[in-house]
Amino acid sequence: MSDLLSRFAAIVGEKYAIRDPQDQQPYLVEMRDLYHGRTPLVLRPGSVAEVSAILKLANDSGTPIVPQGGNTGLVGGQVPHESNTEIVVSLKRLDRIREIDATSNTMTCEAGVVLASAQKAADEADRFFPLSLGAEGSCTIGGNLSSNAGGTGALAYGVARDLVVGLEVVLADGRVLNGLNKLKKDNTGYDLKNLFVGAEGTLGIITAAVLKMFPKLQSRASAFVGLKSPEDALRLLNLANARAGGSVTLCEIMPRVGLEFVLKHGSGVRNPLAGMHDWYVLIELATAADKPLRETLEYILGAAFEEGVVEDAAIADNLDQARSFKHLRETLAEIQKFEGGSIKHDVAVPVALVPELIRKGSAAAVKLIPGCRPVPFGHLGDGNIHFNITQPVGADKEQFLARWEEMNEVIHGLVADQHGSISAEHGIGQLKRHLLHDVKDPVAFALMQSLKKTLDPNNILNPGKVL
Amino acid sequence: MSDLLSRFAAIVGEKYAIRDPQDQQPYLVEMRDLYHGRTPLVLRPGSVAEVSAILKLANDSGTPIVPQGGNTGLVGGQVPHESNTEIVVSLKRLDRIREIDATSNTMTCEAGVVLASAQKAADEADRFFPLSLGAEGSCTIGGNLSSNAGGTGALAYGVARDLVVGLEVVLADGRVLNGLNKLKKDNTGYDLKNLFVGAEGTLGIITAAVLKMFPKLQSRASAFVGLKSPEDALRLLNLANARAGGSVTLCEIMPRVGLEFVLKHGSGVRNPLAGMHDWYVLIELATAADKPLRETLEYILGAAFEEGVVEDAAIADNLDQARSFKHLRETLAEIQKFEGGSIKHDVAVPVALVPELIRKGSAAAVKLIPGCRPVPFGHLGDGNIHFNITQPVGADKEQFLARWEEMNEVIHGLVADQHGSISAEHGIGQLKRHLLHDVKDPVAFALMQSLKKTLDPNNILNPGKVL
Repeated sequence: MSDLLSRFAAIVGEKYAIRDPQDQQPYLVEMRDLYHGRTPLVLRPGSVAEVSAILKLANDSGTPIVPQGGNTGLVGGQVPHESNTEIVVSLKRLDRIREIDATSNTMTCEAGVVLASAQKAADEADRFFPLSLGAEGSCTIGGNLSSNAGGTGALAYGVARDLVVGLEVVLADGRVLNGLNKLKKDNTGYDLKNLFVGAEGTLGIITAAVLKMFPKLQSRASAFVGLKSPEDALRLLNLANARAGGSVTLCEIMPRVGLEFVLKHGSGVRNPLAGMHDWYVLIELATAADKPLRETLEYILGAAFEEGVVEDAAIADNLDQARSFKHLRETLAEIQKFEGGSIKHDVAVPVALVPELIRKGSAAAVKLIPGCRPVPFGHLGDGNIHFNITQPVGADKEQFLARWEEMNEVIHGLVADQHGSISAEHGIGQLKRHLLHDVKDPVAFALMQSLKKTLDPNNILNPGKVL
Repeated sequence: MSDLLSRFAAIVGEKYAIRDPQDQQPYLVEMRDLYHGRTPLVLRPGSVAEVSAILKLANDSGTPIVPQGGNTGLVGGQVPHESNTEIVVSLKRLDRIREIDATSNTMTCEAGVVLASAQKAADEADRFFPLSLGAEGSCTIGGNLSSNAGGTGALAYGVARDLVVGLEVVLADGRVLNGLNKLKKDNTGYDLKNLFVGAEGTLGIITAAVLKMFPKLQSRASAFVGLKSPEDALRLLNLANARAGGSVTLCEIMPRVGLEFVLKHGSGVRNPLAGMHDWYVLIELATAADKPLRETLEYILGAAFEEGVVEDAAIADNLDQARSFKHLRETLAEIQKFEGGSIKHDVAVPVALVPELIRKGSAAAVKLIPGCRPVPFGHLGDGNIHFNITQPVGADKEQFLARWEEMNEVIHGLVADQHGSISAEHGIGQLKRHLLHDVKDPVAFALMQSLKKTLDPNNILNPGKVL
């Protein structure tokens, strides 16, 4: 084994082969501290050729590999198991932006480019790269694509998958698939890139990608809206879509209890509306055209008032105010912990069924654990709800969290009834692997297994993740 | 064999099993009359269960199957070979629109739904389905997806692949993959649907799809523009993108000789501009918002004039005039035949390289066949050029067309240099099958072969197409 490890280390050079357990720590523990792994070796290749050589040797020797980007994943996909047999391959040194083509509206980034750097590079080319999420200061393009990240830009621009034009991938046996084209249209054979996007590193290692850029947004308008129900929130979204079309860039929903948590625990927050309402929506319009959108937003809200869909609304008067509205929504994700334990779900259902999910899910949660406080919030326009359940006031946190699986079953059961997804944004990784078999169409599950066997016959790529 | 045929016929019932060669004709000859096939049997299943039973029997008996939609494909993918051993399976009886969900903005169509019917159904639900192409009155959703159709809506809304949310597919062994979800976000495992989109029926038979709908367009503005060069056309597009963002719904380019052909042979056509120009662009803005766009278009054209990018332009004063502009572009595809033989290419390159492709390709074509007339036109904004070459005036048509492959090599060689695609919209089918091996990345080609073997181990699905 130690001879084999030396051969791996020789590929990247000793300087980039980390054997010291202390130095390995940042690669072995993930953000929420849910998963800890062990590894004999962390490799930090500096080129595609080195990644290729690593996988060839791994495939020949049957050595399991765990690819890793910024280590910000939320389902344990990027962390090795406890077995101390899996080698971690960090892609962070592949951090070149190989090309910006503003005329073709594409940007070619290596896997280790930090998302915020990609955003900045697009901005400097007078373009806009819309992928945006909480971890953008440290997550990487390779991880974003491997987990098919969602985030706040998804409503108008789609998820990570929708932003990929071409991919470069190292296959399990070390062959390099060069699909780095900049073509919007290419009907020469099967689509290969979508196999690797969202596969969490189990079918190949993405080393670079051609990404779409968009015209820079020139004008924005946003409002914080109080309303009676999720049904009314959906009516508001439909009104906005009809009036502003592709310009609706954000439509986030949050319950009264969510705003109460934020106002209680958040710093520098204040309620934009005079009274309290049962539900809130943060809606934003934005466009690359040099036209103010406030008038359009006022028109939409006016029509919504007339139809009794909206109870109260505050339109941001300036950028600062717009940021403070957004801050309310962002704070909610962080401050739930101050109310005790929280059982989390990242689910998606057809947009039309979100109100029903929220109603039934909240009722079922309270029935299962009387006094618990459902805080379903998130991306209404994508049908993606972070259906979090906060513990009852004064209850024991550990006892509450011990019922995680039970609560999962209740919420996921409702999602299944609606033909929804139990992992809208975050993936499967280790966290939801045991659930996959039950929620997938059996033919889809079998086909996934066939694809895994075809692309990674020796099962060296992130084994024990996803499947 | 006749016993086997009877078993196939029994699945759909004799009424829907066509054995008479005369009655089979519409299924055996394609539009341009380039391919004629023979078949012992055309089957017209009326349900997914019947499609499943057909494939199970085909897989068990090793019988090749040719799936067919509206039979409007341009590369022979939907026509059987001459061997008289392949059974044609027409999906046209699966023509139900299973559901319209205006709130979720999805529409669930069976494979045999005619594209124009899908457009109409969306329209009646106060929504817009943007896929649009010449054959829309007879092509079907199943064929559109299997060939990953492009068309005029692609600039703003993407190609067929981009419009698919979920798929139902019958696999080679008859198993039914149920992926008919309506989810914008779903990260539970591998993306399977994109394997089948654009696979030309070689990996499975698509029987139904959940498709995206969009807010109905409320306002349009279009202009017919004369300019000096493809470079200037690209500058105009970039100006428009920066000013009107997602509202640029059409940007088609055509050379002077193209307009000359149209004015000479087209019916009910007139030149919208006073003089002639070396290049023309048809540009359209459209939005779901209830705001007139003429002012925006005037602003864009004004800025373009100032920068010397545009020589002359006519803005449509009304819908009729807008239609007449579009008619010029559409007519070009039809009337080239009146100038004799035309050697066609359907290529895509990075948008920034279109001017270079046009310049180099035209020069190389004229060098190969002096006097020939290059008519490169098409979807500038998608980098997709129909690089057609019309024969020299007075030359022998057959002699000219005999040099088809030679001319292909010249144009496809330039496309390869630019990392472009030799089939942007139409697919591979039979027409370009012999070229695929040379133009694909060898690892991509090998991976395509592995996927084919995994999904169709007995090679019964449209054999001899694509691969």
